[in-house]
Amino acid sequence: MIGEIIAIGDELTSGKILNLTSNFAAHHLFAMGHEIVEMSTIGDSPELIGAAVKKALGRADFIITTGGLGPTSDDLTNEAVSNALNRPATFHPEILEKITQFFVKNNNTPGPNITLEKLAWLPAGAELLKPEGSMAGYLLIHDKKPIFLLPGVPHEMRELLVDCVLPKLRQLQVGEERHVRQRMYRVFGLSEAEINQKLKDLENDNSLIRLGYYPVFPEVHVSLTALGTDPAETQVLFDIFGRKIEHCLGDAIYGHDEETLAQKVGTLLLEQSCSIAVAESCTGGLISHLITTVPGSSAYFPGGVTAYSNQFKIDVLGVAPETLDTSGAVCAETAIQMARGVRKLSGAEVGLSVTGIAGPSGGTKEKPVGTVYIGLDFKGFCTNRLFTLPGERHNVQTRIAFTALDLLRRKLLEEKGPLG
Amino acid sequence: MIGEIIAIGDELTSGKILNLTSNFAAHHLFAMGHEIVEMSTIGDSPELIGAAVKKALGRADFIITTGGLGPTSDDLTNEAVSNALNRPATFHPEILEKITQFFVKNNNTPGPNITLEKLAWLPAGAELLKPEGSMAGYLLIHDKKPIFLLPGVPHEMRELLVDCVLPKLRQLQVGEERHVRQRMYRVFGLSEAEINQKLKDLENDNSLIRLGYYPVFPEVHVSLTALGTDPAETQVLFDIFGRKIEHCLGDAIYGHDEETLAQKVGTLLLEQSCSIAVAESCTGGLISHLITTVPGSSAYFPGGVTAYSNQFKIDVLGVAPETLDTSGAVCAETAIQMARGVRKLSGAEVGLSVTGIAGPSGGTKEKPVGTVYIGLDFKGFCTNRLFTLPGERHNVQTRIAFTALDLLRRKLLEEKGPLG
Repeated sequence: MIGEIIAIGDELTSGKILNLTSNFAAHHLFAMGHEIVEMSTIGDSPELIGAAVKKALGRADFIITTGGLGPTSDDLTNEAVSNALNRPATFHPEILEKITQFFVKNNNTPGPNITLEKLAWLPAGAELLKPEGSMAGYLLIHDKKPIFLLPGVPHEMRELLVDCVLPKLRQLQVGEERHVRQRMYRVFGLSEAEINQKLKDLENDNSLIRLGYYPVFPEVHVSLTALGTDPAETQVLFDIFGRKIEHCLGDAIYGHDEETLAQKVGTLLLEQSCSIAVAESCTGGLISHLITTVPGSSAYFPGGVTAYSNQFKIDVLGVAPETLDTSGAVCAETAIQMARGVRKLSGAEVGLSVTGIAGPSGGTKEKPVGTVYIGLDFKGFCTNRLFTLPGERHNVQTRIAFTALDLLRRKLLEEKGPLG
Repeated sequence: MIGEIIAIGDELTSGKILNLTSNFAAHHLFAMGHEIVEMSTIGDSPELIGAAVKKALGRADFIITTGGLGPTSDDLTNEAVSNALNRPATFHPEILEKITQFFVKNNNTPGPNITLEKLAWLPAGAELLKPEGSMAGYLLIHDKKPIFLLPGVPHEMRELLVDCVLPKLRQLQVGEERHVRQRMYRVFGLSEAEINQKLKDLENDNSLIRLGYYPVFPEVHVSLTALGTDPAETQVLFDIFGRKIEHCLGDAIYGHDEETLAQKVGTLLLEQSCSIAVAESCTGGLISHLITTVPGSSAYFPGGVTAYSNQFKIDVLGVAPETLDTSGAVCAETAIQMARGVRKLSGAEVGLSVTGIAGPSGGTKEKPVGTVYIGLDFKGFCTNRLFTLPGERHNVQTRIAFTALDLLRRKLLEEKGPLG
């Protein structure tokens, strides 16, 4: 099917906010075999919104709009669509009731000039996409074409697209039924160009197979989509190409679909009944934070120490003052003492440490910005690795944190062995 | 002037690549006082490109296209514009000469399917934007309206926009010269709706003033733009409205333009010669990481402790086991003991702590997910605050971290006093 995506908001046309929702929608629609004729972005103007929807109805099979569904005075999508399609605004008491309850439950009151009622007036015929949820988001069938009106808030839009819009489109896609199998391979440690190079021969190998490369700093995600008319044939192709990708990229693939690197590390730690503590210098707590983004991480993470000053390294982690005097804070020996120190402090099986130079200042000729030593105390066996990572401060910190987690992942895979 | 931005490329409409160029252009054009009527993204199709340019000519004063200027077979912008505007393709030998030299100089050969000649055929009347450079990029004046055809490669596009397009537009903008003054107010602790309510009366007060609201979770940024023909008058208006915004939003404004909350806290700490250490439970190191995103934070941040398990709280921070037994990890007394403990451990003037329930599990009726106690030991004087913050795990962690930093900011402002 041919689709059109319309993003609405003055914050987009003034360049204040980067439009992330249209790309997200295009990516998922393309992967399902749809074609996007145009993605347009317009301001909060009823005339522009109305004209864009009408134009899209003339050439697309379905339309997705994002933005302009909120309670403030510049949210005009409902009103504009009502007028343009001659579908009078209709009051939905159940929506008002739900929103009011939501405010009561959260002990919140809307501002005095915010009329929650605004949220309950929808173009005639609009159906709530998630009646059980608390988000705006409707489906309107006009001239037999579905128009999905989604909120502009990225996480809400993404949730509704995946949970409601894509299944609905699949259901509406009559005639030649298409079978779609899709997987995202999550890769760390190879650049997009390196991955491209490794997968080059697979790319145009089969017309039913699509590969996509999505850099999500500091990772790259590779999507594999098999699109066919026969379900069994589609599945076979999907499996064959999946194995080819796994063969080409090897253990640079750390996980699939929504799995994060910290989640993967957590799963491996749980499998091996290991707990972990971290000692960070230049990453300032980021590794520890990444570990605790995973629900249930308290099962394997007692805690961590951010030792930014030398004195803190000495007092809390027990790093020897002589080591710091002789070799400095950024050296292999300090990294090892930090890992050992935090393991001892916490009683964990594994201690992971980083000490390096995040920049912009502090670099020297011998140890430029981006230099980092990663230390690992794995049940009493200590190792360390030296990296020099590119980028400015924030990027360096992120790269170091992911590199440390990836090092631990590889160590845990090694411990598990090929038969694990 | 009213402008329109057209981004061209199948890689954009398939969602493989995030469109960064349109946002960059919109941001700079808006700041110069231009208005963007639409940003559209279309695939590499001559019909779509031609139709989009013609439509834009009908309603905009200038047009910027990006993409489709390269040497491969799917680069079709020149051809499409030639046909749509009836401007026959014209051969530019000097361009071919320059490109050939460029390849020779870099010891490079074009791929077997690449014909460099393609790059030298431009719509009649096209002028190279940077004749001295090696990039594609032209200006075409059609019906007295400038059409800028820029490459899609982000760094090339950005260079040409800043160096050529913006100056050219300034030059074309004859008659009324526009003066622009702009500032972003960064706000924490008020929702977009609440800010909207407080600034409502200012919004339509003056046609030369624009306000914009940009939620950047968990903050909201408010932009003030004054646009006038007279520089002195513009400045006066800008100052008046700036003071009005400051009056309406008070100390919910923590900073301006690019300043972050962690930066502001760092500035205040330095001014008062205070150092800070943090003890975190549910945020897992995020506060410590936010503090260390600021270059130079080592001057006031010796370190922090992420105490996820109770034992770590006892062993490292010296929290009393009886407190944990009696009142649990999430209570005022634990928060205070954590703040006091990390202050003692680090020798810092200030100890900041958080202990709470980030979810999704662990909540109870008395202490639901989102409950957090923030503890502060300010030079030996201990206080605590209880919050209940909404959202799922990641949002709760972020809100808690920012709430803790903001609490510290307010305490430091209070210490500084009104005359500070």
